[in-house]
Amino acid sequence: MRRNGGRVVATLLATRPWQVKSNVAFVVGLGLLFLVPGMLVATAVEWGSSGSHNEVALAMGALASLVAGLLLVICTRLEPDMPPAAVFATVAWTWIGSSVFGALPMWFSGEFGSFDNALFESVSGYTATGSTILSPIEEVGRGVLMWRQIIQWYGGMGMVVLAVTILPFLGVGGLSLISAEAPGPTSDRLAPQVSSTARRLWALYGGITIAIAVALLLSGLSLYDAIAHAFTTASTGGFSPYDSSIGHFDSIATEVIIIVGMLLCGVSFTLHWRAVTGNARAYSQSSEFRFYLLVILLAALVAASLNWLNDISGLASSLRNGFFNAVTIGTSTGFGNASASNPGGDFAAWTAGAQSLLLPLMVMGGMTGSTAGGLKVLRAQVMAKYMRVGLLRVKHPHVVARVKLGTTALSEPVLQRVAGLVALYAFTAFAGTLVLSMLGQDLITASSGTISALGNMGPALGEAGPTSNFLVFTRPARAVLMLLMLIGRLEFFAILLVLLAAYERARRVTRIKLRR
Amino acid sequence: MRRNGGRVVATLLATRPWQVKSNVAFVVGLGLLFLVPGMLVATAVEWGSSGSHNEVALAMGALASLVAGLLLVICTRLEPDMPPAAVFATVAWTWIGSSVFGALPMWFSGEFGSFDNALFESVSGYTATGSTILSPIEEVGRGVLMWRQIIQWYGGMGMVVLAVTILPFLGVGGLSLISAEAPGPTSDRLAPQVSSTARRLWALYGGITIAIAVALLLSGLSLYDAIAHAFTTASTGGFSPYDSSIGHFDSIATEVIIIVGMLLCGVSFTLHWRAVTGNARAYSQSSEFRFYLLVILLAALVAASLNWLNDISGLASSLRNGFFNAVTIGTSTGFGNASASNPGGDFAAWTAGAQSLLLPLMVMGGMTGSTAGGLKVLRAQVMAKYMRVGLLRVKHPHVVARVKLGTTALSEPVLQRVAGLVALYAFTAFAGTLVLSMLGQDLITASSGTISALGNMGPALGEAGPTSNFLVFTRPARAVLMLLMLIGRLEFFAILLVLLAAYERARRVTRIKLRR
Repeated sequence: MRRNGGRVVATLLATRPWQVKSNVAFVVGLGLLFLVPGMLVATAVEWGSSGSHNEVALAMGALASLVAGLLLVICTRLEPDMPPAAVFATVAWTWIGSSVFGALPMWFSGEFGSFDNALFESVSGYTATGSTILSPIEEVGRGVLMWRQIIQWYGGMGMVVLAVTILPFLGVGGLSLISAEAPGPTSDRLAPQVSSTARRLWALYGGITIAIAVALLLSGLSLYDAIAHAFTTASTGGFSPYDSSIGHFDSIATEVIIIVGMLLCGVSFTLHWRAVTGNARAYSQSSEFRFYLLVILLAALVAASLNWLNDISGLASSLRNGFFNAVTIGTSTGFGNASASNPGGDFAAWTAGAQSLLLPLMVMGGMTGSTAGGLKVLRAQVMAKYMRVGLLRVKHPHVVARVKLGTTALSEPVLQRVAGLVALYAFTAFAGTLVLSMLGQDLITASSGTISALGNMGPALGEAGPTSNFLVFTRPARAVLMLLMLIGRLEFFAILLVLLAAYERARRVTRIKLRR
Repeated sequence: MRRNGGRVVATLLATRPWQVKSNVAFVVGLGLLFLVPGMLVATAVEWGSSGSHNEVALAMGALASLVAGLLLVICTRLEPDMPPAAVFATVAWTWIGSSVFGALPMWFSGEFGSFDNALFESVSGYTATGSTILSPIEEVGRGVLMWRQIIQWYGGMGMVVLAVTILPFLGVGGLSLISAEAPGPTSDRLAPQVSSTARRLWALYGGITIAIAVALLLSGLSLYDAIAHAFTTASTGGFSPYDSSIGHFDSIATEVIIIVGMLLCGVSFTLHWRAVTGNARAYSQSSEFRFYLLVILLAALVAASLNWLNDISGLASSLRNGFFNAVTIGTSTGFGNASASNPGGDFAAWTAGAQSLLLPLMVMGGMTGSTAGGLKVLRAQVMAKYMRVGLLRVKHPHVVARVKLGTTALSEPVLQRVAGLVALYAFTAFAGTLVLSMLGQDLITASSGTISALGNMGPALGEAGPTSNFLVFTRPARAVLMLLMLIGRLEFFAILLVLLAAYERARRVTRIKLRR
């Protein structure tokens, strides 16, 4: 059976002379084929649940993805020696293609209204953002909601591989730094082959997901709820089939499991792999990991103290809510946790001081090589190092300042990249705020919505707070948010290169026309 | 007479064996002596005006400054070869000392309530911020209000010299870059001697102030109003003796003069000096200048269009208000311009889209070497360059990217400094927001108040908008704002070094005590 399957795959992937050379089309096709099993699982869930009848919508989505995926994979083949820009374009189009086909079952179900609403939900899922336009969520059938959870898991899976294999290869991720921090020069590095690395990381990602699901099940959740939330915890996505998100369960055991799960998946999967393969000191050796834990821990404790001292809640529930929210924001997951008996689970109910502690977490996000979004801890660390060098330079102007992270001196290209990305982040944040506010949002909603989308967070402030939904944004504004989510998820460069290429092509066409 | 005066000064400054060696005390003393003529002018104004009788308060302030200044100058002497950290400490203490003594006449007058209120106004003045706790301003006597205007002019005067002489010498200003952009390697540089450079720049600053005052007089303002607003236009400070600020005059001619004045003083005074001394192409050769003008022009035009298209105001008054506010924010001046017949003069009345255009201007501020605050155009340019290099690197990973500004390649130390300062800015902004919100402000007021204080802007958003005053902040919050204004004004490093030194001294003392 296994051998037959291998033969089928080999036949499919074989190179034939009549195939069109197109890396983008081939990889997008592969991505669509990946979606099919997930859609079939969701179809089965829908079929097994009594409340709704969207089996056909889900099955149709699976069929469409299968046909389109097969057509693309059969009719095209990979071009060897892809230039880096082509790799980026391929990545970007894979995310876009998956989002479009992932939206189909939701659109077919009729529960999301127009196609662009379904697409918003799908993009929010694949980018592991977790902003939703559904309200009330519970009215949608269980199968479609499960598909919505699975989308996020796929997105996280794509991100793990992307962040650890392709992005650092192109010099925008963090692996080159992380690996440099490890004791040996290259010995501890993950296998350089993309496919074998991918397989290992997916095994790890799957293992963590299963562990979370089992733990949630043991904490008293139904099988459906346990799996659904394991998917969006592991991907640090933040979707839930319930309006009140994790607050639906109002269970401290469940919250602790989800906190641990989010914390784990905000950590670089390279680190996890090292730890799993026997390097017990992998975590403690990583300065990024120590910084990540320290910042979240500090934010949680200070926020809890502030809420306790200001009589927002008692000490125990201040600690509970402080930790949950610091972790859900610090890992860019974005689960809500308010319930009737625990209103402080929603950070909008906190004092302004405690809320402001979450702002740097929103911008920073999780570790490089994790499923989390944001600028990433490593980049914040690099910027913090340069802050210290700046102060040192003022005291001793002629000092030769070597900036180190752990035991590694940072080279100029690394700094150039980090500074470039920080600048790009600031620029995109301003541009997003400008466009959203021009499309009718107030300044707070526009700016926090931009930061939330860029950081793949989920909830924003103002009109789009954690208990609200993203229909408060106008239709064109939601299109902008989709773009921002994709830009943030693919570390800015992929989507911007695609936009740039489209612009250059358009200009070239115009120029040729003018010449004629 | 002149010779006698010279002899008196020489006697004062002579070195005597019994003097204590202290650069800080000596320079602070000189700074206090500088204040005396300004206070005497204000005393004369008060004496000449009929409404109020605060001559004694102003004269007492002058006397206190004179006595303290003389004591410090006579009892201490300069230590040769100051280490850079000492230069910074001296600068910081000069600003602090001047602020404390500048607050005295306002405190003595009884019009400001407690001393800390007077100090807030004084710090806001010396840092050319322009946030006020007065309301209604008109109830305070004309002499004290004139002193408030003079404080800002002093602050601008200090800044011009600081920015062009001391900061670049220590590697945190922009002159090293600017001079490198000029054609010759060193020929076009300003004289390296601090004192002669200072004298030239003060002449220029004085000349521009006089020109603005004369133009304002010709536009129909009274002598008092013309001089008062020339002081705070040249210093890009933003104080006005009127609650409605420039809106008080509701005159387009006055606004145009003030717009031109603010634009001029947001430009590097080194550039002005080059232009005045015959290099007609000085402005056009500076990429920082072109960027500065372009950004403000674009913001003004787009904001005007948005307000016009959204029927906030007609085309003419949209343009008028767009330009006034883009310039007053872009140069970190912070004048208001609303009047009964022109409500759109206050940007709080604009559409959210037009308002959001002002956000990047608030962060960026004016040019290096000007009286304006903010991160400075040059640093925004450097960050933008690295953004472009980042995109280039993704397309061509092995390209050796030399980052240029104009014709000058940026070296690694320059980038380190810029990245360090941007990081420091972000960190301080988060910390300020956190502390202000812990002290009872809502998030919007806290964050915009922090940005406004750090950028020496004046107005903020939320409760502290352009038509409000800073009494909306609690008393401890106003103390934090004072610190932020000083940190922003002295390019972060001076004040932070002083704080660091105080911390280290405290630690050393504790350690010694523990040893005993």
